[in-house]
Amino acid sequence: MPDAGQIRAFAALSKGAALEPWSYEPRALGFHDVEIEVSHCGLCHSDIHLIDDGWGRSAYPLVPGHEIVGNVAAVGPEVKHLALGQRVGVGWQRSACLECDLCLAGQENLCRRQQATCMGHHGGLANRIRIDGRFVFALPEELASEYAAPLMCGGVTVYSPLRRFGIGGTSTVAVIGIGGLGHMALLMARALGADTTAFSTSPEKRAEAIAMGANDFAATSDPKEIRKHFGRFDLVLSTVHARLDWTMYLQTLRPNGTFCLLGMPPGVIQFPPSLLVTGERSITGSDIGSRSVIRDMLRFSTRHKIAPQVQRMPMAEANAALTRLRQNQVRYRLVLEN
Amino acid sequence: MPDAGQIRAFAALSKGAALEPWSYEPRALGFHDVEIEVSHCGLCHSDIHLIDDGWGRSAYPLVPGHEIVGNVAAVGPEVKHLALGQRVGVGWQRSACLECDLCLAGQENLCRRQQATCMGHHGGLANRIRIDGRFVFALPEELASEYAAPLMCGGVTVYSPLRRFGIGGTSTVAVIGIGGLGHMALLMARALGADTTAFSTSPEKRAEAIAMGANDFAATSDPKEIRKHFGRFDLVLSTVHARLDWTMYLQTLRPNGTFCLLGMPPGVIQFPPSLLVTGERSITGSDIGSRSVIRDMLRFSTRHKIAPQVQRMPMAEANAALTRLRQNQVRYRLVLEN
Repeated sequence: MPDAGQIRAFAALSKGAALEPWSYEPRALGFHDVEIEVSHCGLCHSDIHLIDDGWGRSAYPLVPGHEIVGNVAAVGPEVKHLALGQRVGVGWQRSACLECDLCLAGQENLCRRQQATCMGHHGGLANRIRIDGRFVFALPEELASEYAAPLMCGGVTVYSPLRRFGIGGTSTVAVIGIGGLGHMALLMARALGADTTAFSTSPEKRAEAIAMGANDFAATSDPKEIRKHFGRFDLVLSTVHARLDWTMYLQTLRPNGTFCLLGMPPGVIQFPPSLLVTGERSITGSDIGSRSVIRDMLRFSTRHKIAPQVQRMPMAEANAALTRLRQNQVRYRLVLEN
Repeated sequence: MPDAGQIRAFAALSKGAALEPWSYEPRALGFHDVEIEVSHCGLCHSDIHLIDDGWGRSAYPLVPGHEIVGNVAAVGPEVKHLALGQRVGVGWQRSACLECDLCLAGQENLCRRQQATCMGHHGGLANRIRIDGRFVFALPEELASEYAAPLMCGGVTVYSPLRRFGIGGTSTVAVIGIGGLGHMALLMARALGADTTAFSTSPEKRAEAIAMGANDFAATSDPKEIRKHFGRFDLVLSTVHARLDWTMYLQTLRPNGTFCLLGMPPGVIQFPPSLLVTGERSITGSDIGSRSVIRDMLRFSTRHKIAPQVQRMPMAEANAALTRLRQNQVRYRLVLEN
């Protein structure tokens, strides 16, 4: 039996292991800290990466979970923006230095001293979490918790580049990979008024992608389906962690268009330089979103009723949930509930 | 002896050949055409590429030369912005459709139906040239012709990305390759107030690069010299046509920084995707400059007294000039004079 003060979590005790109930003593509540009673936590492929030590930086026991929703259970003396009992969300990032040029410029998601919610710290698959309140976000009342959870990381990851590249009612956007991130990108791009095309290896997702707001769908197993879209897009969002035919996809951009990596494919990206010089096309990446963009995304998602397609499971069934995720059976985001 | 109406030019009669005097009958002066009495013409590596059919699109006889300065000798009936005798300049581009979305948006340098001054048309190594007056630019009186010539193509090619990326007094810029384009980039970046670093394979260019406005110089034969600059630049302008260590150079960018290709290296560009996602860095290309940017560049260069370091030679010595260019002996731009 854990102490009353202990946090009851689900942890991988070693690389690749199934999760087990595991308790730990939380750090003392710091000046800026908030303790959250977790009600919901999204699951995404990054959690599997962490469990499997795919980035080579995991430490065990490892408690995954970085799309957290819950209620404020305790606040440190310097926390002014949140009240006890308030419903809040936490995403991938748990802190930043708040002193460097990037932090001062409102880009703390690029801070070199940033810390991740469940890397070197214990994440949201737990009954509670203690975390820097400056990275805890009040949730709009109208936004359901099961939607807010995946929006906190996957949602802002796709929203941030849509906003950075000024996507709106005259834009043409492509989304590569219709999974957790990709389906939220379709919902948001539709709300922004863009003409959106879904690229997927799974032809059976066509109808759902169209229902989520895609104006067109391309089954990428057939290169001809990709070629049809040459020269079309202002922005291509790549949400996949797989190797792509970069030369092919860069040609789907219009002049001045941007290919934006959200996922981190293995190996190297390669393409002929003429694809960037002719037409002044760009390739870039995007890394979650800043605190300002998270707040904006929450307001946007509330106003436009962005409703991620979630499958809810009890947190006690986390291992079954991870298995479904590993087997690519999730349509389109898992949310665990306490 | 050519007819009085014929244009006397210097042409390569076959791939890679030395230039020979050669005459041709110009096209009838069209409504929008201007005939220019050529006084100066810059020479750059693209001319060698054209002579050698390096892009596989050359047609012979080939008259190179696309950094043209001269005086208006005749105008078609629709030419309203230029007067007989007026001093003018012409760059890489000789026409565009002026109807497509890009043309209407003032980006006719990206028009798919654009034509180049000396591809499929005869260029500026001649006594005269007839060309669409909508791509002929009035030169400010204070701008010397030997400076205006290289500015018309090399100058706008470096100016366009400096402007696109908002380079100014708080920016840090790197220029890879201190040749024709690179040295103009140093002069312009200094005029914009940027902190600029020159990257060159030639250590002996250090003093000159500093004199042109570089705040720092890195001899790129030593990778340690490049590593010193990791994380520093808002913008890296690559003016070279050589393969680079892309992974190394992308790391010289700050978060949000952009690597911009002006030269077209052979083969493919390759790098790990994490270099773009972490820090949201970009890689892009830039292709000459629009008419609006050319006008702006001419005003800027006049106001800031941008004086490219030119070596002047008589046009009759074009072959000797090309030999110097092929042997990398030019410091830093050749201008041929009639």
